[in-house]
Amino acid sequence: MDHFQPVDFSAVDITGGFWAEKQKCICDVTIFSVRDQFAQTGRFRAFDFDWTEGSDVPRPHYFWDSDIAKWMESAAYLLQKAPNDELQAQIETLIDRIAQHQDSDGYFNIYHTVVEPENRFRIRDHHELYCLGHLIEAGVAYYNATGRDRLLNLLDRYIDLVIRVFCVEKSAGFTTPGHEEIELALLRLYRVRRDRKYLDLAMFFLNERGKREEGLTDWCNTRYNQSHLPVRQQRTAEGHAVRACYLYSAMADAAMETGDAELLAACRALFDDIVSKKMYITGGIGSSHHGEAFTTAYDLPNDTAYNETCASIALAMFADRMKEIDLDAKYADIVEREWYNGILAGLSLDGKAFFYENPLEIRLADRTRHRSMSSGDRLPITQRLEVFGCSCCPPNVTRFLASMEGSVLSAADDAIVVHQFLPCKAQIGDAALQMETRYPLDGKVCLSLSGAKGKRLMVRIPGWCRQYTCPTPCEVQRGYAVFDVDSDRFSLEMDFSMPLTFYYAHPAVCADAGKCALMRGPVVYCMEGVDNGERLFDLTVDLTCTPQVRDDASFGLPVLELRGTRTRDAADAPLYACDAPERTAVPVTFIPYCGFANRGETDMTVWFRPTAE
Amino acid sequence: MDHFQPVDFSAVDITGGFWAEKQKCICDVTIFSVRDQFAQTGRFRAFDFDWTEGSDVPRPHYFWDSDIAKWMESAAYLLQKAPNDELQAQIETLIDRIAQHQDSDGYFNIYHTVVEPENRFRIRDHHELYCLGHLIEAGVAYYNATGRDRLLNLLDRYIDLVIRVFCVEKSAGFTTPGHEEIELALLRLYRVRRDRKYLDLAMFFLNERGKREEGLTDWCNTRYNQSHLPVRQQRTAEGHAVRACYLYSAMADAAMETGDAELLAACRALFDDIVSKKMYITGGIGSSHHGEAFTTAYDLPNDTAYNETCASIALAMFADRMKEIDLDAKYADIVEREWYNGILAGLSLDGKAFFYENPLEIRLADRTRHRSMSSGDRLPITQRLEVFGCSCCPPNVTRFLASMEGSVLSAADDAIVVHQFLPCKAQIGDAALQMETRYPLDGKVCLSLSGAKGKRLMVRIPGWCRQYTCPTPCEVQRGYAVFDVDSDRFSLEMDFSMPLTFYYAHPAVCADAGKCALMRGPVVYCMEGVDNGERLFDLTVDLTCTPQVRDDASFGLPVLELRGTRTRDAADAPLYACDAPERTAVPVTFIPYCGFANRGETDMTVWFRPTAE
Repeated sequence: MDHFQPVDFSAVDITGGFWAEKQKCICDVTIFSVRDQFAQTGRFRAFDFDWTEGSDVPRPHYFWDSDIAKWMESAAYLLQKAPNDELQAQIETLIDRIAQHQDSDGYFNIYHTVVEPENRFRIRDHHELYCLGHLIEAGVAYYNATGRDRLLNLLDRYIDLVIRVFCVEKSAGFTTPGHEEIELALLRLYRVRRDRKYLDLAMFFLNERGKREEGLTDWCNTRYNQSHLPVRQQRTAEGHAVRACYLYSAMADAAMETGDAELLAACRALFDDIVSKKMYITGGIGSSHHGEAFTTAYDLPNDTAYNETCASIALAMFADRMKEIDLDAKYADIVEREWYNGILAGLSLDGKAFFYENPLEIRLADRTRHRSMSSGDRLPITQRLEVFGCSCCPPNVTRFLASMEGSVLSAADDAIVVHQFLPCKAQIGDAALQMETRYPLDGKVCLSLSGAKGKRLMVRIPGWCRQYTCPTPCEVQRGYAVFDVDSDRFSLEMDFSMPLTFYYAHPAVCADAGKCALMRGPVVYCMEGVDNGERLFDLTVDLTCTPQVRDDASFGLPVLELRGTRTRDAADAPLYACDAPERTAVPVTFIPYCGFANRGETDMTVWFRPTAE
Repeated sequence: MDHFQPVDFSAVDITGGFWAEKQKCICDVTIFSVRDQFAQTGRFRAFDFDWTEGSDVPRPHYFWDSDIAKWMESAAYLLQKAPNDELQAQIETLIDRIAQHQDSDGYFNIYHTVVEPENRFRIRDHHELYCLGHLIEAGVAYYNATGRDRLLNLLDRYIDLVIRVFCVEKSAGFTTPGHEEIELALLRLYRVRRDRKYLDLAMFFLNERGKREEGLTDWCNTRYNQSHLPVRQQRTAEGHAVRACYLYSAMADAAMETGDAELLAACRALFDDIVSKKMYITGGIGSSHHGEAFTTAYDLPNDTAYNETCASIALAMFADRMKEIDLDAKYADIVEREWYNGILAGLSLDGKAFFYENPLEIRLADRTRHRSMSSGDRLPITQRLEVFGCSCCPPNVTRFLASMEGSVLSAADDAIVVHQFLPCKAQIGDAALQMETRYPLDGKVCLSLSGAKGKRLMVRIPGWCRQYTCPTPCEVQRGYAVFDVDSDRFSLEMDFSMPLTFYYAHPAVCADAGKCALMRGPVVYCMEGVDNGERLFDLTVDLTCTPQVRDDASFGLPVLELRGTRTRDAADAPLYACDAPERTAVPVTFIPYCGFANRGETDMTVWFRPTAE
C-alpha cells in the first residue's frame, strides 16, 4: 500500500452543515472570548515581562506561554481561512514581545525569566519545553497561513539552546520533559523545514524517556508522565492522559518519518489498549482526577469520570496520525467519536464556555452529601466556565475545531481516502473532490470526483454502521470501501443506515453492568433531568419502543423521544421492601451528549437500565 | 399501657444456639485478645502515668482511657456470668491505678495529665467527658457484677468536679462535649444510685447542646457533633453517626426518666429519619468516611459505605431504649437487624479480629486503580484487624455481645414482652420464662411461662415475617402478638415462616437501583468472590429459582445456593458492542453478610441484579 499523507486543512473547504456552524461560532465568538478571558487574567500582559513580587501585575504561571501559543495557533488557522487584520496584528504584537524578551542565549519562558530564573531547566514538571512545543506549533501554523517565519526563526535560536543544554552539555536538571508536547512539535516543524536537527532532538527526547527515574515528587510516580519504561517497550496506556497521547502522537510521527518498527509496534499496542479497555463510549479518556490519568483496564466510573477535553483532543491527534500509517477505519472511527462527543462536549453551545472534565453522569443530589463536614469527595463541575486557572482546554478546543478539516481526507499517488463525512470541497493535486451530505442528520453521502481517473477512491464505512448501500459491489479493506475511479467525472452515493442503536459495555466494566447507552450514527446520547425529571437512575428505557427522531436547532442534531418506565411517586415508601416498587410508563427524552449542561444545572446520564422485557 | 422496663441481662441465661456460641467465643477468646492487643499497644501501661516526651513508653492518646473502660465493662459482664479471678484482679489493678493517679480535685484523664495538662477541659473534641462516661459505665457494670463500688466512688469525685467546672464556675473551654457518651452514662448511673445530681448534670449537657457554636475546626462543623440545633428541635440525623446515636440514646433515657414530651418527639423523629432514609439494609449507618457521618437522605453507596461497627451498636442502643417507651416492634426489629448483620459483621469468626468499617461491596480490582499516582480514593479495608489506632470498636463489640441478653425481654407489672428469639431461661419477678428455638435456623419458637397467670405475654412478630402460625388467634398491637396468660403453666408455640426474601430499596437510593438484596429471616446475605468468581457485578440472580438452604458449621447460619447467569468468557470482547453479551446459567452461592471476609481477601456484594424474566 502507498504511503498516505493527510490532505492539508487549507486544501479543504467546509461548505455547510453541522461543522460549518461550529466553525462559524469558533471564528465569530470563541476566538475572541478566549482572548478576552486570557487578557483579563493577565496572560497577554505576561508577555511584557514586568511582573515583580508585590506588583499589581498577575503572577505568571509556568504554563501561560502555552495558553497564548494555542490561541495564536487558533488565530493562525482562522487567518488561513480568511484575512483578519485584528487577529494578525495581535499575533504580530506577541511575536514582537517574544523577540524583545528572548534571552541572548535564545531562551524564552515568561515564568522562568520573571519568577524563578534560578530554576531555568531545573524542574522537570515546569513545562518549559511544553511551552516551547506549543510556540513551535503556533509558529508553523502562522507560517503556513501567512508565509511569515519570524516566530519560527526566533524559536530556532531557542531550539539550538535546548540542543546544547540537553544533548551536548547535558546540564539540565532533567533529561526528558515532564509534560510531552515538544516532541510532536519538533516533528511538525521538521516536516515544514526539513532540518534534520529538529528530528534528531525529537528522537533524543523520545529515546531517553523511561531510561531513568527523574523528577519524582510525592504525588507523581514514573507512570504519571510515561517514564516507567523506554517508549518502545510501552504496551499499556499509563498516567496523565493528555501527556500520554501527546507522546504517542509524537511516537507515531517518528515512526512515520523513520520507519522505526519498534516504535510503530508500541503505538499500535497503546492505541488498542486505550480503545479496547480504557475509553468511555464518548471517547473520553483518563478516568481519574488523580493525576488526570488512565487507571486500570475497564475502570470507567461515570460520575467521577475525568475525561479532560484536551485528552479527547490528544487521542484524536494520535488516531489521526495512526490512520496515515495503518489505513484502518478503526482510527478514523475514533477521530469521529471524539469530534461528535468527547471534544465537542467541552464547548458550550454559545461557544463561550468550556468543560475541562466531561463526566458521563451528574447527580446533583450528590453535591450536598457531605453537609456534616467541610470536605467531600471530589466531583466534576456541572456547568461550563469561560476560563480556568489551568486553562489549557479552551484554546485547545479552539485550535482543534478551527483546523479539523485536516482530518477529512488522505491521499497517496494512486488513491484518495475519505475518512470523515461533511459537506466540503477539496483540491488534491489535480483532483477535485466534492462531498454533499447532511451527515450526521442522515447517512447519505454523495461524492463527486474529477481529475482522478485511474486512482482508487476509498471511503470509510463507519464503525457504528451495520448496513449501508452503495451503487456497485465494492471490496472493503480494513473498513474502507474501495472503488476504482473509472471516469474523469466520477460520482458515488453511499447511504449509511443510521438507526438508533443500543450499546452494551464489556462485562468487566462495573459502572455499566446491566446498562445500555444510546447512539445514533456517531452521536452518543444522554438524558438530562431538565427533560426527564430527577432520579434518572430510576428510569428504564424500553429498547423495543418506536422512537421519534426530532430535529433540534439549538443542538444542531436530533433529539430522540423514547418510552420507558419509572417508579410511581414513592416519597413515603419504606427504605427496604419485599415488593418491587410499582412502575409507570413515561416518555424518555434523549439529547446529544455533546449538548449536555447547556440548559442550566441538571442531572445527566449516558448509561441507563433497559426495561425488563 | 404500663411502663416497661428491660429485664436485666443478669436475669436471662442464654441456654444454647447461635448466640451461646458467640458468647462462648467472646468469653474464651475475644476478651483476652482485645486485652493483649491493648497491652501490646501501651494502653494498660498508660495507667502508670509515666509517659514523658522522649521516653520509650507509648504516648497515650486522649481516647485510650475509654478503650480500657470498655474492656473493663466487658470483663465485668463476663464476671457476672461466671467468676474469673484473672479478670477481676486486672480490673482491681486498674482501679488501684485510677485511685493512685486521680488528681486531688477529682480529675482523671491520662492524656490531659501526662501530655497536655495545660489544656485540661479546653479542647472540645478531646474526649475527656467521653472517657469519663465510659469509666462510669464500667463502674456500673462492675458494681452490678460484684457489689464493689470503689470505682463509682472515685468517679463520683470526678463528677463533682465536672459539675463545678461546667455548671457552677462555667470555666471550661466548652459547654458540651464534642463526643457524646457522658450523658447516657450519667443517666445509667442515676438509675443505680438515684442521686439527682447525676440526672441534673446529664440534663445540663443535653439542654445546652446546640445553643451556641463552639469547638469548630476546619474539618468539622456544628452538624458533626449534633450542635447545629438545640436537641429538642432536631428532627434529622446529622453528623458523626456514633456520637449522634449516643446522644439520641441519652435523650431517650432522659425522656423516660423525666417524661419530657419534646425530647421524646425528637427521639421518635430522629429514629424514623435514620431507619427510613439513612440506614443500610444491614443496619449500617454513617455512610461517609468524611466525619464518619450521616449524609443526605437515601445516600447509601455500597463500596464506600463507612458503617462503623460502633455506629451499629449505638443504633441498637437507641432502639433498645425506644422500645421501652413506645412498645413498637419497629424498634426491636432494628436491634435484631444489628445483632445479625451490622454489629456481628464487625467481628471475625475466630473472635479475634474486627472491622471498624463495614462496606456492602468489595471490588478488589478497584484497589489497584490509581497505579499512576500515589494517592487514591479512599476505600474501606478488606480484612479485619486485631487492633486499630482508634480502637473503639473491638471493646465495644465485646461489651455489647457480652450483655446482649438485656435486650431480649421487657416487663411491666401486668405484662412480659419477648423482643428477641434465642434459647434462654429468665426469671422475671415471680415468673419464670423458658424459650426453646433454633432461631434463626428456623422460625419456630416455644415459650413456657410459669408464675405469670393473669398477665399478658407479648411476642414480637418480626418485621421481616409475612406469615406465621400461633395456637390461638391473637390481637397484634404495634407488631406484638398479645396473649392472655390463663394458666400457671402457660405455653405457646409460634412459627415464623422463614422463606428466602428479596428486598428492593427505595427508588431514591441510587446505589441499589435495579438491584435486590437477599434475606432469610433476620439475616442479610451476600455473595463472595471466593464462591462465585470475580466480577460479582456481572452476575444476575434468578428470583424464581428453587433455592437450596444448607447448614454451615463455620458460619453457624445456613449457606444458600441459588441459580443465576453471568457473561460467557469475554476477555477479547470489544469495549462497546451493540449485541448484548451472551450469558450462561451458573449456580450462585450466598453466605451470611456477617460472615464475609473470613476466607481471605475476596470480592463481596450484598446488592445484585435480578435475572430478567
